[in-house]
Amino acid sequence: MTRLNPKATTRAALLLMAGLCALSSSTRADEGMWTFDNPPIAQVRQRYGLTLTPEWMAHLQRASVHFGGGSGSFVSPNGLVLTNHHVARGCIERLSTAERDLDGQGFYARTHAEELRCPGTVLKVLMSSEDVTAKITAAAKDAADDAARAAARTAASAALESACERDTGLRCQTVALYGGAVVHLYRYKEWDDVRLVFAPPEQAANFGGDDDNFTFPRFAFDYAFARVYENGKPAASTGVLKLASKPLKEGDPVFVTGHPGSTDRLRPAVELQYERDVTVPQRLAIARAGQTLLKTYGQRSAEAFRQAQGPLASTENWLKAMTGEYLALKTPDVLARKVADEQALRQAWARLGTGGEDPWKLAEKAVESRRQRQAELAYMNLGWGGLLGSAGGLVELAQERERPLADRLPGFGDAALPQIERRLRSRFPVYPELVIEQMTLQFTQAQSNLGAGHPFVKALLGTDTPRAAAERLVRGTKLADPAVREALITGKLAAIQASTDPMIVLALTVSPMLRELSQYQRVNIGAPLQRAAEQIAAIRFQVLGTSVPPDATGTLRLSYGKVAGYRTEGATNPWKTTFGGLYARADAFDNAMPFTLSPPLVAARDKVDARWPLNHVSTNDIIGGNSGSPLVNAQGELVGLIFDGNIESLAGRYIYREEADRAVSVDAMAIVRSLETVFGAPALAAEVRGQR
Amino acid sequence: MTRLNPKATTRAALLLMAGLCALSSSTRADEGMWTFDNPPIAQVRQRYGLTLTPEWMAHLQRASVHFGGGSGSFVSPNGLVLTNHHVARGCIERLSTAERDLDGQGFYARTHAEELRCPGTVLKVLMSSEDVTAKITAAAKDAADDAARAAARTAASAALESACERDTGLRCQTVALYGGAVVHLYRYKEWDDVRLVFAPPEQAANFGGDDDNFTFPRFAFDYAFARVYENGKPAASTGVLKLASKPLKEGDPVFVTGHPGSTDRLRPAVELQYERDVTVPQRLAIARAGQTLLKTYGQRSAEAFRQAQGPLASTENWLKAMTGEYLALKTPDVLARKVADEQALRQAWARLGTGGEDPWKLAEKAVESRRQRQAELAYMNLGWGGLLGSAGGLVELAQERERPLADRLPGFGDAALPQIERRLRSRFPVYPELVIEQMTLQFTQAQSNLGAGHPFVKALLGTDTPRAAAERLVRGTKLADPAVREALITGKLAAIQASTDPMIVLALTVSPMLRELSQYQRVNIGAPLQRAAEQIAAIRFQVLGTSVPPDATGTLRLSYGKVAGYRTEGATNPWKTTFGGLYARADAFDNAMPFTLSPPLVAARDKVDARWPLNHVSTNDIIGGNSGSPLVNAQGELVGLIFDGNIESLAGRYIYREEADRAVSVDAMAIVRSLETVFGAPALAAEVRGQR
Repeated sequence: MTRLNPKATTRAALLLMAGLCALSSSTRADEGMWTFDNPPIAQVRQRYGLTLTPEWMAHLQRASVHFGGGSGSFVSPNGLVLTNHHVARGCIERLSTAERDLDGQGFYARTHAEELRCPGTVLKVLMSSEDVTAKITAAAKDAADDAARAAARTAASAALESACERDTGLRCQTVALYGGAVVHLYRYKEWDDVRLVFAPPEQAANFGGDDDNFTFPRFAFDYAFARVYENGKPAASTGVLKLASKPLKEGDPVFVTGHPGSTDRLRPAVELQYERDVTVPQRLAIARAGQTLLKTYGQRSAEAFRQAQGPLASTENWLKAMTGEYLALKTPDVLARKVADEQALRQAWARLGTGGEDPWKLAEKAVESRRQRQAELAYMNLGWGGLLGSAGGLVELAQERERPLADRLPGFGDAALPQIERRLRSRFPVYPELVIEQMTLQFTQAQSNLGAGHPFVKALLGTDTPRAAAERLVRGTKLADPAVREALITGKLAAIQASTDPMIVLALTVSPMLRELSQYQRVNIGAPLQRAAEQIAAIRFQVLGTSVPPDATGTLRLSYGKVAGYRTEGATNPWKTTFGGLYARADAFDNAMPFTLSPPLVAARDKVDARWPLNHVSTNDIIGGNSGSPLVNAQGELVGLIFDGNIESLAGRYIYREEADRAVSVDAMAIVRSLETVFGAPALAAEVRGQR
Repeated sequence: MTRLNPKATTRAALLLMAGLCALSSSTRADEGMWTFDNPPIAQVRQRYGLTLTPEWMAHLQRASVHFGGGSGSFVSPNGLVLTNHHVARGCIERLSTAERDLDGQGFYARTHAEELRCPGTVLKVLMSSEDVTAKITAAAKDAADDAARAAARTAASAALESACERDTGLRCQTVALYGGAVVHLYRYKEWDDVRLVFAPPEQAANFGGDDDNFTFPRFAFDYAFARVYENGKPAASTGVLKLASKPLKEGDPVFVTGHPGSTDRLRPAVELQYERDVTVPQRLAIARAGQTLLKTYGQRSAEAFRQAQGPLASTENWLKAMTGEYLALKTPDVLARKVADEQALRQAWARLGTGGEDPWKLAEKAVESRRQRQAELAYMNLGWGGLLGSAGGLVELAQERERPLADRLPGFGDAALPQIERRLRSRFPVYPELVIEQMTLQFTQAQSNLGAGHPFVKALLGTDTPRAAAERLVRGTKLADPAVREALITGKLAAIQASTDPMIVLALTVSPMLRELSQYQRVNIGAPLQRAAEQIAAIRFQVLGTSVPPDATGTLRLSYGKVAGYRTEGATNPWKTTFGGLYARADAFDNAMPFTLSPPLVAARDKVDARWPLNHVSTNDIIGGNSGSPLVNAQGELVGLIFDGNIESLAGRYIYREEADRAVSVDAMAIVRSLETVFGAPALAAEVRGQR
């Protein structure tokens, strides 16, 4: 029998209670992106008096589509998928040429025969999932150190995925939830024949451009339709969302299903502090330099302007989001609330007395490891996408596939290889002059941040200036030709090693350096952070169970909320906008860009009803990756299409605030009505209405 | 021959130059509310390539009308005055009854005979002005101390005003500019027969209510028309603004003439710091308590709601403005820029070596004197307006008029007495239950802030509670009856001393205390601050001349600028809004209050053109008191009617920021078109168009 100091006990108990309150305070309000195996049944019942039945959940799950980096939903039995214009934009741009500008002019396939296949686009639907935590944990339990542990987990995951794919014929993927403390195996039905059906002109989809991005009131027709095919015919949808029979009202409960990319709500404060002080400012500086480059390049000619528009829109979209996140990180109360939550959890941990390694100290050590090689982690890469990125990808694929499974880099399991090949095969437009500018910038940044003497920089430049090196590489490479890439894929490592393509030669030269850095990142940063996250998650589980949803992981989630306007400093915002509001905003700017009306909208002005709702806002907790998500009502019927969040919601990576954060949707009826009245696509509208 | 340390000279010269730059930086951009004797000719020429001729200035001056606490302009030769609905609202409310709600329903006099005289309203036009600084200074030059000096100046001002009125038949007023360093004598033509011609329904004038107040985009028909009469007939206007012949465009230079009330751009930083830390928070707390009271009272009945609406609108308007100012004062860079300006000026003063008392130390001492009696200065008063305020006014008038001119309180010169009488005679609605609530609050605040033992509190309450005292006073007084007040005015001090009206008795009891406090304020705070301001202004003159305009003084000023949209954190705002935008905003809120369309606007929806401009924004530097000011183009033609500033411009009391601050106007054509198409007043529109 132990003796406790009663006073000390009381204080500790109070601290623990205080901790519980602080921790669970984050689950009040309409917060959370919930997995489908752990839906927020109690919360929705308490807040909205609704019961989420298994049938209702299954219906939504089967109708929800993963669409590249975004989301979508089936809206007819014949494989018709609704998503955002900006989600389908990669496809739209790849199908566009200087002569046929699908982005600027829009596109409508009046028949199935006219539907255009999107190069490299793959859609998938989550069919089922299974908790494999015990299997993964068992596989890693005898590992001697972090590296061995991570490798064992990777191998176990890859083995589970391969077995699953062999057994089910589905695409299988393990998903680490709660920082890896829970691992699920997700099984997807996948379609790689995806065809563009409809896209409005970009100026209608993106009215207001970067000026209106992340704002509300908003007036955007940001939607597009694609269709999945099997064996050259429209595929049967795994589930279908019906158009709502009643119009939406303010206060209506609404739900979002989709694939939010990532949040950092459960990460240790030390990581967020490091992001705030180092990583985010660095990324912002890199992106701003890229933005300036694209703007300057676009001034060369009309064609250069067209080439730069797509990447510029992506860059500015990312910059506005990241700037919002950065402002959120710098808001004193955001990090203060994080730190308070964390202190409460640490006290709860101390109170539990389970001992073991301190996960927060572990995280501090990992952050210190990151700090030591920060410049290399930021500037030692071959660029994402584009020619040199392809070269790096081809070399990496060839090298990794030769290694035993346990030695491979993460993401190179056997199951993943076909997808990587597909990505490397996909066609993309190459504008050599633009690529030279971008590589010159990238090389210059590497040179000035790593130093001219760094082996990576020496390999990049040789004795050239950054511009001369970029010109030499771009003029010399043949990788823009898909056949050349195909030969390097099928020829495997031998073909790579025999290649004289200057970009392949460079990628081979720097490959050991990049692999060493990747290993360092994994062993000294990723793995310890993952172990810290697991331990923190374990402590959380002991305190709160699964009442807090896991951080977003790019996989299917459900969020609940209601349609509601909001107030900001000095402004009262409505819950919706109207077609009349769109014309008024264009008029207010004298129809100047980016508030110019697209020609079909000019022509339809007298045909539309000014009172028709166009966009609306709701309290649903969403983040990047939710673009294209369906917004559904209590009956599970389609009422809207998520396409953005307000500026306040950019703090959502770290914290959710119901009073301020809003998800922005295109009204579902606005889609159907504009197809009928503005964009001349009544047959497509009829398909969405369930009339054909 | 003196010997100077060359190094020291150089440094001092550099400091002086730095000072000049810092000081004159405040005159870049579209800054300044300029007197008509010192117009910004060089600035307007440099920025807009326009020359302000004496004829152009005179034309504007004669057409610009002082309208109560606001502004207005003549827009027809027959005495027709355009101002804001919210400027004319005092008149509109005084003419309203429970049966005839001119505020809610609007008003239109189809004939001169139907025009309704506004009780107590006086309009005036500045006819000429004269610099009398030398005369005032000479009169005070032998004064022994601050009090004597202030008294001598007051007496000299009053004598000048009286002589002027006798000689010219005009209304004369001395105006202290640059903190009193410059004094001008202003001569006004005045009309005390002012009749209401037109007012739209309040919900059209004030669409969006407090939610949209101080914001943009904006959709308000905030205009009203009155007419001045002489000898029972419409008077001839002293000048007329013609409606612009061309529509306004973004970027057009525009000018505002009007009567900005007060700014604090030249005040010592120590005063602003005190405002920020003490005065403003205190005033905000008092006003918020008043706001709560009015809201609670308005819930009693429909009639109580109607009674509370007017004062509530005023209170909320004031609160939003003061909150904006408070936020501005708390913005680190605002006070920091003030302090930097001041340090530069102090250095320039030290460099000049003129010696004498340090005006900044004098200001510090005055602020300390204020601090010592802060609670009394805030809570020792009989309330502004209302019954007890009338009692205080009647007693004060009777007492002051018996004293020799030199002993009187400021503002009680012979020339001022008729105006004070007129104000005390004017009819105002008395709602006893509301007055009891307001007095209870006021007495409670006095009791808790001054203490129950304070002689003023004892006089107010006797042995009663605040509520009992308020009930006793309100139930017992007869001052709501204009005849009773008339008898007390004409009966002078004897009638006052003989009165048994409980409010008069109370006002007589506290009169010595209030007078002592008023003297303390004048001698220990007002006079030294004025002397400090004069000295600071003198230093400024030596450094900058009149290149910096004086702070606003409620007298006629000109500001220049251009029509321009603006960006805020996260939003791009257009330069104008349209009729279509109004309907869209009402639709977006499902026509709920305060975004409900007034019935005439509902009825006219299909008759108006959605593209017609409604409100617009310009960079003109304005502040409270500019409400009702005309906005004119380079030809001096009417293009708009100032009615508000954006939320950013609330910092304008202390600082002007061209990138952020905007004046908000009703478009001139929107006035004419809405008279014709919405409000059924085509004849009035024709008069404004110069067609009758």
